[in-house]
Amino acid sequence: MASDQVLRGACIIGQSGGPTAVINASAYGAIRAALDAACITKTYGAAHGIKGVLDDKLYVMDAEDPKELALLRNTPSSELGSCRYKMKDPDADETDYKRILEIFRKYDVRYFFYNGGNDSMDTCNKISKYCQKVGYDCRVMGIPKTIDNDLFGTDHCPGYGSAAKYIATSCMEVSKDATVYDTPQITVIEIMGRHAGWLAGAAALATAAGAGPDLVYLPETDFSMDRFFDDVAKIWSSKNKVLIAVSEGIHYADGTFVSEAKTSATDGFGHAQLGGLAVRLAEELKNRFNTKVRGIELSLLQRCGAHLASATDLAEAELAGRAAVEAAVAGKTDFMVAFRCERSGGRYSCQTELLPLSEVANYEKKVPMDWINPAHNGVTQDFIDYALPLIQGEPERIVENSLPRYAKLKKELAK
Amino acid sequence: MASDQVLRGACIIGQSGGPTAVINASAYGAIRAALDAACITKTYGAAHGIKGVLDDKLYVMDAEDPKELALLRNTPSSELGSCRYKMKDPDADETDYKRILEIFRKYDVRYFFYNGGNDSMDTCNKISKYCQKVGYDCRVMGIPKTIDNDLFGTDHCPGYGSAAKYIATSCMEVSKDATVYDTPQITVIEIMGRHAGWLAGAAALATAAGAGPDLVYLPETDFSMDRFFDDVAKIWSSKNKVLIAVSEGIHYADGTFVSEAKTSATDGFGHAQLGGLAVRLAEELKNRFNTKVRGIELSLLQRCGAHLASATDLAEAELAGRAAVEAAVAGKTDFMVAFRCERSGGRYSCQTELLPLSEVANYEKKVPMDWINPAHNGVTQDFIDYALPLIQGEPERIVENSLPRYAKLKKELAK
Repeated sequence: MASDQVLRGACIIGQSGGPTAVINASAYGAIRAALDAACITKTYGAAHGIKGVLDDKLYVMDAEDPKELALLRNTPSSELGSCRYKMKDPDADETDYKRILEIFRKYDVRYFFYNGGNDSMDTCNKISKYCQKVGYDCRVMGIPKTIDNDLFGTDHCPGYGSAAKYIATSCMEVSKDATVYDTPQITVIEIMGRHAGWLAGAAALATAAGAGPDLVYLPETDFSMDRFFDDVAKIWSSKNKVLIAVSEGIHYADGTFVSEAKTSATDGFGHAQLGGLAVRLAEELKNRFNTKVRGIELSLLQRCGAHLASATDLAEAELAGRAAVEAAVAGKTDFMVAFRCERSGGRYSCQTELLPLSEVANYEKKVPMDWINPAHNGVTQDFIDYALPLIQGEPERIVENSLPRYAKLKKELAK
Repeated sequence: MASDQVLRGACIIGQSGGPTAVINASAYGAIRAALDAACITKTYGAAHGIKGVLDDKLYVMDAEDPKELALLRNTPSSELGSCRYKMKDPDADETDYKRILEIFRKYDVRYFFYNGGNDSMDTCNKISKYCQKVGYDCRVMGIPKTIDNDLFGTDHCPGYGSAAKYIATSCMEVSKDATVYDTPQITVIEIMGRHAGWLAGAAALATAAGAGPDLVYLPETDFSMDRFFDDVAKIWSSKNKVLIAVSEGIHYADGTFVSEAKTSATDGFGHAQLGGLAVRLAEELKNRFNTKVRGIELSLLQRCGAHLASATDLAEAELAGRAAVEAAVAGKTDFMVAFRCERSGGRYSCQTELLPLSEVANYEKKVPMDWINPAHNGVTQDFIDYALPLIQGEPERIVENSLPRYAKLKKELAK
């Protein structure tokens, strides 16, 4: 997985999976490093991730204005376009891999950087293995990205810190709003995270700051409606306002999602499409406590809230993109960039390391059970100590007329 | 409605109605001016607006740390507590008015400042008229506040600019997120505003900035589901993504709210409690266009998003509070502070003026029909030119650990 030889050729950078506030910062880190690397002859951005490769839709990054490229750091979501495309096992169906190889050959692509979550690391790994099998020399690196923070082997994932900051800040603001009347009110905030509670847990940062949810439910534990009612009743008996944060992925002991009865559509990977949980729980609480309730879903806002990005997250996202290119140029392949961090005595430091793709693909990292409180309705100080450094710092916000100024790329197609 | 005499006595400042990102800035402006006024002997904050007066729950503002008071500018929602309490007509039932007079006499209250929307100006007006009727000398001033921006006679209302900025910024971010895949998607964003479309119209600021909704529906015009489908189909035929912003108050020609079938609860003023419209429209669109849809409700977030406040709005909110106290001290009574603004050649200026309470109470100012486009699915440049100056400027955000640092008041009760 390493070579001393200089490998000359073009590179492709692709973005995949759900967008984040800082995935474009990773793209910028990778694009900038690729443009600056002598052995990289051309830098392409794949339109909508691997689909852009399959469709022969590649944008020429060399043609972009460097100032606009730099504005990618200020631009949420995936500017090159994203996809949710599950690669088949090459042993079962080689079609896609043959096509990818054809495109790689057409543009002399020798470097492939893919920025995404679990499924994207799997895509990376499969492409790399296929190239090796057919003897095509191409260095493949994964750049981590997911607000869900569930990638294996890395301290945390770019995108998480900014989403966590958005969630914590919004919970603080809602906490202030939801307690403004002297009349009783129960408020439920629904937070993303299908299987891991990293995002829902971030709501507890608001509580630690003095204005947050009374109860936080993560998908790492089984949910029980009766226990939930008991939890709420306990708070209710001491004050007439209850603020609750729930992960969209909370489920009963039999594995059924609490929100499941409401939805049936699925996304491209066969995951159940969740949502509507806040409203559903609010209805249950209304029936039980006969009071004013409100369900709030943070929805897409939590993953694209670039105006509230964490400067730490933003810098690390860019670093991850740059590190992937630098490692590949230095001869590495088949790795994902990961973070190794230290938190001691209030000090936080973060450096990149490389993990074999085969070790990270398709594993999910969940919140450790001992970071969840014994009542399963909150997180421990260990969780707070873990997450708080990741939301630190206010980035410079580039605005025009006090609204965000996003990157305007030409997106010239390669021929 | 004016007197040259110096009136010596205590003052009460109350907050009423739905909270905003900057209502505490108005409270700060009023409290600071009252603390500094020689003729004001004591400054009280009413707990939960007029209910705090009725319940004899007044906080002593003189006892607060000035630094914490100043942090009110950084604190969303109504820090003194709010209420939705409709005062009866004093000719029908004097009970509340007698009680208020009793409290005013108990604390020698000679100044009453009430910060709220339409209903609050009505409360102000009734209290003032009652005091005059019974010969109790008290100067009463209304301080405008409402994200709905529907107060009569003033160019705009404190709270609107910050909510508009939150809405525009969030629409830009969602626009980036909702267009990230190459697969079709229709997204509906639900925005507050029962009868006036000022907030929904603010979504068009995002479009003007290059990343916003394709269609915007205001409650000033009648909604038709068939016309709505036609509007969406037109966009749909040219691109496979449609972003739609709707006011929660959109209604059919017969006056029925589009969201109405879903809800039955009412708030304290007898208004229908709305919500769930985005999800409802998303369902209709899913059935019609057979595609991926997403409904997003900005919910409470849009009115308490202090982290994204407009510096202009914040400064004007504080100014309105201060102006109310200064005018009352100078002998005025029975007025609401209003804004008179000029917008010419890209320059914006704003100054306060006083409007008789009787002229503003209970009237609603709607978006002029000629600021709505002929197709009734967007706003004109006049609207943009009106709203854009109100969202300008980034205030200094006071944070601790990168999360907002809110005012911590002692709230010592008056005895």
